[in-house]
Amino acid sequence: MSNQRKLKFGAIIHGVGGNIAGWRHPKVQADSSVSLEFYTEQAQRAEEGKFDLIFIADGLHINEKSIPHFLNRFEPLTILSALAAVTSKIGLVGTLSTSYSEPFNVARQFASLDHISHGRAGWNVVTSPLEKSALNFSKTIEEHPDHAKRYRIASEYLEVAKGLWDSWEDDAFVRNKETGVFFDPDKLHPLNHRGEFFKVQGPLNIGRSKQGRPVIFQAGSSEAGKDLAAREADAIFTGHPSLEQAQAFYQDVKNRSSALGRNAEELVILPGISPIIGKTEEEAERKYQEVANLVSIDKALDYLGRYFEHHDFSQYPLDEPFPDLGDLGKNSFQSHTNRIKKDAKEKNLTLRQVALKETTPRPAFIGTPEKVADLIQEWFEGKGADGFIIGSGVPNGLNDFVEFVVPILQKRGLFRTEYEGDTLRDHLGIPFPENRYAKKVISR
Amino acid sequence: MSNQRKLKFGAIIHGVGGNIAGWRHPKVQADSSVSLEFYTEQAQRAEEGKFDLIFIADGLHINEKSIPHFLNRFEPLTILSALAAVTSKIGLVGTLSTSYSEPFNVARQFASLDHISHGRAGWNVVTSPLEKSALNFSKTIEEHPDHAKRYRIASEYLEVAKGLWDSWEDDAFVRNKETGVFFDPDKLHPLNHRGEFFKVQGPLNIGRSKQGRPVIFQAGSSEAGKDLAAREADAIFTGHPSLEQAQAFYQDVKNRSSALGRNAEELVILPGISPIIGKTEEEAERKYQEVANLVSIDKALDYLGRYFEHHDFSQYPLDEPFPDLGDLGKNSFQSHTNRIKKDAKEKNLTLRQVALKETTPRPAFIGTPEKVADLIQEWFEGKGADGFIIGSGVPNGLNDFVEFVVPILQKRGLFRTEYEGDTLRDHLGIPFPENRYAKKVISR
Repeated sequence: MSNQRKLKFGAIIHGVGGNIAGWRHPKVQADSSVSLEFYTEQAQRAEEGKFDLIFIADGLHINEKSIPHFLNRFEPLTILSALAAVTSKIGLVGTLSTSYSEPFNVARQFASLDHISHGRAGWNVVTSPLEKSALNFSKTIEEHPDHAKRYRIASEYLEVAKGLWDSWEDDAFVRNKETGVFFDPDKLHPLNHRGEFFKVQGPLNIGRSKQGRPVIFQAGSSEAGKDLAAREADAIFTGHPSLEQAQAFYQDVKNRSSALGRNAEELVILPGISPIIGKTEEEAERKYQEVANLVSIDKALDYLGRYFEHHDFSQYPLDEPFPDLGDLGKNSFQSHTNRIKKDAKEKNLTLRQVALKETTPRPAFIGTPEKVADLIQEWFEGKGADGFIIGSGVPNGLNDFVEFVVPILQKRGLFRTEYEGDTLRDHLGIPFPENRYAKKVISR
Repeated sequence: MSNQRKLKFGAIIHGVGGNIAGWRHPKVQADSSVSLEFYTEQAQRAEEGKFDLIFIADGLHINEKSIPHFLNRFEPLTILSALAAVTSKIGLVGTLSTSYSEPFNVARQFASLDHISHGRAGWNVVTSPLEKSALNFSKTIEEHPDHAKRYRIASEYLEVAKGLWDSWEDDAFVRNKETGVFFDPDKLHPLNHRGEFFKVQGPLNIGRSKQGRPVIFQAGSSEAGKDLAAREADAIFTGHPSLEQAQAFYQDVKNRSSALGRNAEELVILPGISPIIGKTEEEAERKYQEVANLVSIDKALDYLGRYFEHHDFSQYPLDEPFPDLGDLGKNSFQSHTNRIKKDAKEKNLTLRQVALKETTPRPAFIGTPEKVADLIQEWFEGKGADGFIIGSGVPNGLNDFVEFVVPILQKRGLFRTEYEGDTLRDHLGIPFPENRYAKKVISR
């Protein structure tokens, strides 16, 4: 393997369009969020592109205002397991919340996926930001725990999961048909965890996988989220509007990781982007406008209102300057609503312009394959990213990226032309984690 | 479709041998309990045999005394999802306990499997009989709930799951690209469940499947288990040592179901059997002995001891009559230990004979393909079974059954020669369940 730093790519698959009306595009399969055929095609396309992984996001609460692909979609562990059977190299990463599930069940399901896929599983650990999620899970938690408590739970949860994944040492299953020894009892380790939130005895009823244990992703960007990532994660799924902000985040998290004694190179930072590729700048622009124009102005106003405490924007004239809203928005998505107000004022935008812009944000990565490749190289070499999670903002977005951008990056020596290993850890360049009990023996 | 009653077959896949030492057989793949390739081959073999379903059992607690294929095995939902991608017709049924999980998560995962498989999912609802399971889940339940309470939980849990599966009416997702209507809000129904054990608002973030909702299996044979099955289940996985006992159970459960106003034909009763097939009676007998002989006498005594409160049988002479144990065994597996004692006395068996017999029980369905087919026909026509779940007690057990027994039953007109439908409900002859909200409209 070459020692040169190489780009990492993930493909986020969710089906049904790049904005709230993307499903209306003639080229979009309107039921793609529950189509195994669509997910299979996308996963195989990403594997042809030598991507490191596919990524399945998640959420635990919907209502009638939710965006279309949240309403009716696959659950991550089940769809990833299905995709494991129809792919052979690509990593399989899914989101699962630590706020409304049992560590024994979740550690076991990810370990099972890791075996099914021969070492390609990854778990994006989230704590569920939506207050209403609790309404579907009131058996265990009457109210949604506050932010700080959610992260304390997540941290202990992850400790339990990692402990359960070490229940069996790598060579515990001897399976000697002559002697009749199926496993070495000295290499079986119950966990006996008793913490603030969980008591879990173990052992887990499944052994270590080809990559030791699933890769841990983290997606929170709060202080608590960054600390958890720096301490426990192998990779971070993030998102930034500019290279400068990406660089600041990158440096911040890598520093936190180094400060904890970790090798910062072993924490992979992957911002999400939704590139729009055209043979010409004009074609790319046309693709963006096509999708943006699918959103009716009523839906766009409705969507905009969600950021401002469900404010009714239909009361204002559409083509006059964005209205003065006073303090409205400061209690829900404060930094986002402040930016909207500032932007509208600076650029003298109308309400219609703001609503459409918010509903279909203009991606930073838009243009010809060369231009998008240049931007990716700039972010990568400028230490704003170790790679990217590629979303599809327009129909065939992933296919265009694989067909037109990947070859350029390969030619520049920035991205692999062939898989060099078999596991997700191999792809990401993250070392095999020693079993905690095996370590103790070695260090004697 | 013919109206004649037809046999139903399931294949239970678990990997690694028909007794505690079955993995030692030269023809057994010793890591088959975590081999995707083994599971795929078995599932595809069952599908070639036109089986109704494959079945993945489960457990939530192990210790160093557990039988080999319990120690290291796939989790049911993940392996079934993987197998969904490499099969096209066969049903996919897995065990999941209602005692240590959240109904929203579980309803969602089974619904997702049901979509991934285009309507082939089934859930075997169990309540976890092992007291020690609680030790892995002490977040929610400090002590293992008693039997009656476990069944009250299961009943409410199932009510919640069925309610969540009706969140969206079958035609709720309109997806009209012209009008921009993605779904009909009148066909979206939050559950708003508030019961003794659960509060779940809903709606579920996945719609109805091709078969409406997953098929419900039940495996308990206690009074509470039979009542739950008669009321809520579509199929029962059971087991009986003799046709007479099977008939009594069959009649009992069908009567309970009729008494509740259900059509008893729509509750399918499937005893588990592990047939051993030989070209001759002698070959079948040889196959049985081969597996039985893999168990060392030490392991057999150890295994026997588990039924008698971990009694140490190594203290007795092996080839003298089975020892007098007094009351021992009455607190753990009373009916089973009583039968062992009675049997040993009546047949004047030695300790060695009892231990080996218990470790590798002689299957009722053993012999030539014709003989096994005759027995199956006798149980089926004698209303002891609507079909069977076939386990592999010897290497290639499922393959032998598919190759040699299935064609005989097909020739006799007792079993399908081709799938007549696409969903698990189609195969089992269970009607499509109307969405509860759609029903209300129709009945106006």
